[in-house]
Amino acid sequence: MEGLVISEDENHATDMALATDFYELTMAAAYYYSNNYRDRDFASKKIAIFELFVRKLPDNRAYIVTAGLEQALYFLANLKFNQKHIAYLKSLDVFKHVGEDFFEYMTRFRFTGTVWAVPEGTILFPNEPIMRVEAPIIEAQIVETVLLSTINFQSLIATKASRIVSSAMGKDVVEFGSRRAHGIQAGLLAARAAYIGGCVGTSNSLAGYKLGIPVFGTMAHSYIMSFEKEEEAFQQFSKVFPGSFLLVDTYDTIAAVKKMIRLGIKMKGIRLDSGDIYHLSVECRKLLDSAPRYSNTKIMVSGDLNEYLIRDLVRKGAPIDIFGVGTELSTSRDDPTMSGVYKLVAIRVRGSMKGIKNRIRRKLTHDTLLFKLKTSPGKKTCAGPKQIYRILENKKISRDCIMLEDEGQYPTDLAIPLLRKQFERGKLLCKLPLIAEIQSYHIRQLDLLPSQFRDLDFKPIEFPVFISEKLKGITMEFRPT
Amino acid sequence: MEGLVISEDENHATDMALATDFYELTMAAAYYYSNNYRDRDFASKKIAIFELFVRKLPDNRAYIVTAGLEQALYFLANLKFNQKHIAYLKSLDVFKHVGEDFFEYMTRFRFTGTVWAVPEGTILFPNEPIMRVEAPIIEAQIVETVLLSTINFQSLIATKASRIVSSAMGKDVVEFGSRRAHGIQAGLLAARAAYIGGCVGTSNSLAGYKLGIPVFGTMAHSYIMSFEKEEEAFQQFSKVFPGSFLLVDTYDTIAAVKKMIRLGIKMKGIRLDSGDIYHLSVECRKLLDSAPRYSNTKIMVSGDLNEYLIRDLVRKGAPIDIFGVGTELSTSRDDPTMSGVYKLVAIRVRGSMKGIKNRIRRKLTHDTLLFKLKTSPGKKTCAGPKQIYRILENKKISRDCIMLEDEGQYPTDLAIPLLRKQFERGKLLCKLPLIAEIQSYHIRQLDLLPSQFRDLDFKPIEFPVFISEKLKGITMEFRPT
Repeated sequence: MEGLVISEDENHATDMALATDFYELTMAAAYYYSNNYRDRDFASKKIAIFELFVRKLPDNRAYIVTAGLEQALYFLANLKFNQKHIAYLKSLDVFKHVGEDFFEYMTRFRFTGTVWAVPEGTILFPNEPIMRVEAPIIEAQIVETVLLSTINFQSLIATKASRIVSSAMGKDVVEFGSRRAHGIQAGLLAARAAYIGGCVGTSNSLAGYKLGIPVFGTMAHSYIMSFEKEEEAFQQFSKVFPGSFLLVDTYDTIAAVKKMIRLGIKMKGIRLDSGDIYHLSVECRKLLDSAPRYSNTKIMVSGDLNEYLIRDLVRKGAPIDIFGVGTELSTSRDDPTMSGVYKLVAIRVRGSMKGIKNRIRRKLTHDTLLFKLKTSPGKKTCAGPKQIYRILENKKISRDCIMLEDEGQYPTDLAIPLLRKQFERGKLLCKLPLIAEIQSYHIRQLDLLPSQFRDLDFKPIEFPVFISEKLKGITMEFRPT
Repeated sequence: MEGLVISEDENHATDMALATDFYELTMAAAYYYSNNYRDRDFASKKIAIFELFVRKLPDNRAYIVTAGLEQALYFLANLKFNQKHIAYLKSLDVFKHVGEDFFEYMTRFRFTGTVWAVPEGTILFPNEPIMRVEAPIIEAQIVETVLLSTINFQSLIATKASRIVSSAMGKDVVEFGSRRAHGIQAGLLAARAAYIGGCVGTSNSLAGYKLGIPVFGTMAHSYIMSFEKEEEAFQQFSKVFPGSFLLVDTYDTIAAVKKMIRLGIKMKGIRLDSGDIYHLSVECRKLLDSAPRYSNTKIMVSGDLNEYLIRDLVRKGAPIDIFGVGTELSTSRDDPTMSGVYKLVAIRVRGSMKGIKNRIRRKLTHDTLLFKLKTSPGKKTCAGPKQIYRILENKKISRDCIMLEDEGQYPTDLAIPLLRKQFERGKLLCKLPLIAEIQSYHIRQLDLLPSQFRDLDFKPIEFPVFISEKLKGITMEFRPT
């Protein structure tokens, strides 16, 4: 019986290495046997530069909230293949003609590259690099699948959470979606990303245990139903947990709230999970306010909520204190994919190179940069390693300018470079922020966003993103050979 | 730095225990202190019965393919809380009034219940129980979140895969979506579920390593771009992997295929990933067929495919041999949630019980069964533990009949009971099937499905599911107290 939930393998941490598309591994062998890659000195002289970016936002989104960097860097720092992995590859027909020296290389394989990335919680627009990876080409290539799935998913959920939290206009939003998330790990990562996007907490206990995210919970209908009478269930629960939320809609919401008040049951709040939420919240508030001991009792609502339903409830003035959002948040139900891609933008050759004839290259002080771009229909890329400079005016984003990294600083001191070096020669450069710090940073980022981008219905025709003249020139000039 | 990818904790296997909604744990304490639950003998006499079922199918689906049972049973067999988990719970404000005896109980906690479930790969309709859990109420309740997320997600993907495979009318479909799946584990589980649903393999190497699913891969555009000339890339790859698929759309598809033929490059097939797939496949087929050595060369296509696009290509007679499907499959993009629920349907009391006054109960030989159902608007349940009998006519499903489990066998020998006892008193009862056996079983299940249900556009107004008179009677009779 195979667990899969969380690996039972002794070398469980390294099973991550195989969580990659098979073609990353066949390409590794093809690269290994090409162009003297086996000469380590040569390999480290020829550095591939990949950028991870999103070509097109999910439906109805006006910005991206980046997330998942911590898990991505954890992966890079711990990536290795063990003997069982190697034995598996050798057992495959595809690899039968591949020599032993490649498998020995794979045993020694580590990620030794350099990574630039925007901090988690940053607001970005399409085509802006979230991450840049510079490493010997086998290393830079092998990490593609995991970097994408990690950053795509958490950015997807953080972005959705940011919209939902905005729609609640200052009311609390709690993530409740583990049972509909795409497996146990997705539930945990969704809780993390939702917290980055501004949720006050989660129902996922593992996210509390592993990440220190505040955990919330009330009770299930089954708890109420397991008692002979609803009021016994309330009394029993509030005896054990005096300041808790009680679920009132198992049979008849209004009748349940009246019973609680009559019996003087201690509680922090009630939860509504079905029916006409607006009218029920108004009626319940009236009942609670008419009984002086209950005027501070809070109302939490849940049940297939999303940003539009929350906005409507808030606009109508529903007396709701906390929104619990599950499926729609943890699966980003209206569009469950952030289509980030990971593209080769250049190859950096240290020192002078013989035999390189590519027309598109730049002679740097010590390096030669070979620009790379793809010309498949609808999938064009912008060549060269880049930096994003963000220019603020009146404390709002005025524009982002994407420049080649070697163009030098943007010509104003006020421009903020967004990509930071996070990882160098295979080592993490600095302590990563705590999750609460990431959330605070995201909230400050939101303050910089021009207000129309926070409107749920805003469909930007163009984004405030400009490309430097040099970068445009490079891209125009390029012709495939 | 927190991994989350796959836990690094020494007791990593048990971290699953906390992958649960927090309310399962507060309810556990509330149950513990109620009705003499602390008397173990009493607790084991009062058994909660929960059923897991899907109220409503995802959009545009006419049936469910169940999947995830193996991982669900693995969880039940290995569930335990370690000292760190207990220390975490004790550290929370919510638990500050809860006594030490509860935490001692949690240390000893194991799942000791009995589980009935339909085999993985079974075709079901809405409201049919996928699983029934019978256990002391704390145990049956605590497992809710993980059972749901495990079975919901894999059933979602197996169902989507089954549709996509049907649309390909016998052509091969390979799952390619790890980079867009909801994290690393979701990628692995999606590969598993897609294989159950009929895919011939996956690009996910971990699914090959851990589950023995066939792995497929070609090469990325970056591989081609890393060479000076496209043809060098082809030559190098086919030198290392003589019988492989080569990606032809990096610059100009037709030009690339002509180059390959001119140079006599060895390959098993080509992959198209962009542009007008239909016309390109026709043109490429012509070119390949006009060069005798390439008449067996296969054409694989990929790039945002789904069941509708595949059906169109197949109907137009596109000469495509293999479809690679990514995002749309691994996220079930058109509707990324299977809204399975887990509901208390009865409490079974062993022997006679004093003080039970519920009107809805049945005296069995040795047990009293208290039926439970919820009456929240739109969320009604059917009371009582159930069995599904499937009646075939002319080798097709004629109808399913849902009966109370104690009504006895359906009155014809031809009726097949679908729920099987999988787990008893905390132990797995039998060897679970291999993944290839599950796939074969699903394919045989599909043969039983009336053909209109396999039509992508079929929207069933009603399903061939009937409820026994006794079950109807119980549900009608019930009134909440």
